[in-house]
Amino acid sequence: MSKVYNFSAGPACMPEWVLQKAADEMLNANQSGMSVMEMSHRSSDFEKILGDAKDRLRRLMNIPEDYEILFLQGGGSLQFSMVPMNFNKNGADIINTGQWTKKAIAETKKLGKTHIAASSADDNFTFIPKITQDDLDPDTDYVYICENNTIYGTKYKNLPPHEGKRLIADLSSCICTEPINVADYDMIFAGAQKNLGPAGVTIVILKKDMLEQQNENIPSAMLDYKTYVDNNSMYNTPPTYGIYMVGLTLEWLEDVIGGLEEMEKINHKKANMLYDYIDQSKLYSNPVNPQDRSYVNIPFVTGNPDLDKKFVAEAKERGLVNIKGHRTVGGMRASIYNAMPVEGVEALIDFMKEFEEKYA
Amino acid sequence: MSKVYNFSAGPACMPEWVLQKAADEMLNANQSGMSVMEMSHRSSDFEKILGDAKDRLRRLMNIPEDYEILFLQGGGSLQFSMVPMNFNKNGADIINTGQWTKKAIAETKKLGKTHIAASSADDNFTFIPKITQDDLDPDTDYVYICENNTIYGTKYKNLPPHEGKRLIADLSSCICTEPINVADYDMIFAGAQKNLGPAGVTIVILKKDMLEQQNENIPSAMLDYKTYVDNNSMYNTPPTYGIYMVGLTLEWLEDVIGGLEEMEKINHKKANMLYDYIDQSKLYSNPVNPQDRSYVNIPFVTGNPDLDKKFVAEAKERGLVNIKGHRTVGGMRASIYNAMPVEGVEALIDFMKEFEEKYA
Repeated sequence: MSKVYNFSAGPACMPEWVLQKAADEMLNANQSGMSVMEMSHRSSDFEKILGDAKDRLRRLMNIPEDYEILFLQGGGSLQFSMVPMNFNKNGADIINTGQWTKKAIAETKKLGKTHIAASSADDNFTFIPKITQDDLDPDTDYVYICENNTIYGTKYKNLPPHEGKRLIADLSSCICTEPINVADYDMIFAGAQKNLGPAGVTIVILKKDMLEQQNENIPSAMLDYKTYVDNNSMYNTPPTYGIYMVGLTLEWLEDVIGGLEEMEKINHKKANMLYDYIDQSKLYSNPVNPQDRSYVNIPFVTGNPDLDKKFVAEAKERGLVNIKGHRTVGGMRASIYNAMPVEGVEALIDFMKEFEEKYA
Repeated sequence: MSKVYNFSAGPACMPEWVLQKAADEMLNANQSGMSVMEMSHRSSDFEKILGDAKDRLRRLMNIPEDYEILFLQGGGSLQFSMVPMNFNKNGADIINTGQWTKKAIAETKKLGKTHIAASSADDNFTFIPKITQDDLDPDTDYVYICENNTIYGTKYKNLPPHEGKRLIADLSSCICTEPINVADYDMIFAGAQKNLGPAGVTIVILKKDMLEQQNENIPSAMLDYKTYVDNNSMYNTPPTYGIYMVGLTLEWLEDVIGGLEEMEKINHKKANMLYDYIDQSKLYSNPVNPQDRSYVNIPFVTGNPDLDKKFVAEAKERGLVNIKGHRTVGGMRASIYNAMPVEGVEALIDFMKEFEEKYA
């Protein structure tokens, strides 16, 4: 098959600029005479790659100096455990917005007191619960959210209140899709495989003073954020090639796209095109509360499971792939992260129109 | 710099055949229209990549059907914790052969009874301690070894006795360098970044009945081997590109090299060439007991730290890079894993001769 438009929820499409550069440098990166995969993580060549990636992320997201940037392994799923292992002393307040917070809740419960401050489960997670300080347990250490839910297509447009508590957020599907104020958070984590690179690298942005209130007796050096802080993410061999790919993606964001304000404009344009078309369509609908809609994960259904199936199959033949919705929502889902070009969304809408004319 | 010979201890040199194929497929793998990095881990394209990698490893290592093959993240360092979390109920017997078992001992001590059955610390880890069953604590669940010590250049040629106990071995630096009898072990783990691919993938070969004697209350699904067994290593997003690169490296081992018997012949040839030269030299020496010498990590010193430094610098100018020894041993270390061609070792010996003539 020739080049396709890949609407996968993650691992997801990556900028062609990044992949082409990676291909060109595969056997000889930066005149080192070797592939990045072959470099010792203790070499100056690799230290520069890691340092450049951190510097670019700090510039792009405007990360204050009192925050550490760490590279870990294990994805969001290991963070679901590391967060309470390190920081749940008196309890955690979690807002349940679907699959990814449900998993975080299950892991947090194994390790300490867990209070569900709010949940949108009763309406199949089609909205973001609005909470007040009164909804929080007064004793907990932190409030935990998943900022953009990949499966249900929801997104926090305003952060929840968390007076006297830390705010910890899973940004796996929205990191670097828009500018944010990092100082509003105490910890951010994100798997790279949606907006920033390949699977196998987790980015953690941690306010330094969080280390002053860690749990004692963390069961492993590898599960202790301090290990990563103290060793510049190189206590052991980090996922070197993944970090290099994150660095290339950040280079693309900064030098080709022109930064997160520009990226946000493109992402809003893509999302608005698709939502506008869906909302005026007689065939398709999006189940999410309009004010809580994600800019990057857009589920839609025809209301007829057989027709949904036909849509997915015919779209695939047209090179619009991985558009099947998650089984808990059904229908279709277009994940249109940073790397999805406007032309990809246009091609999808063109196909949706044709399909609607044919089958409506 | 043009192509170099890279003697790094890990991440380490990789077969050019593998890197070239990865470069060629970077933008369109297996006619999918996308990079492997862009593939959903739930897609049939990726499932085939993972399945093929497992099948090849099973064939190459002749892994019996009652062993699972798992792909994890976190390197050997996370295994140092996961092994006791899962399997240390009544204690662990560990044989200390240097840095990597020291780290395993430190992590095991946090989690349960830890008995050092033997150690070569008194002689700077230049030999493999020979133990008898009497050296073991009768109560422990397993005996733990690091089969090839990357830093000190030692290698078990015979496995230790472990009657009534499981045997768990870290094969990070020697996996697939030679045929082994997998049935002699209950669990094998190895970071990929020395002989099998890039950093960020850990291979675990686990005898299925080990799951019958796991600890209860493992603190996280991500730290429980059963999670990986039950979900074909895809409970969460695995390091997809790393697994693909492991698959390509196994393809090279099987189809280009011709299997592990052939690989062992080449590795013995390279090691013998270098040891023979060192042993007859008046300038260089290798500190390891001859019967315990590694085939893939060969430390050597001149006895003069200033001359060692000069050696490293002049070698680098000749394209023989990353040959500096670990700080705990000093001098030089040639890591000559599977992917190091015979020509690389010849070029090193040629340079060593010249250097000896010039400075001896």
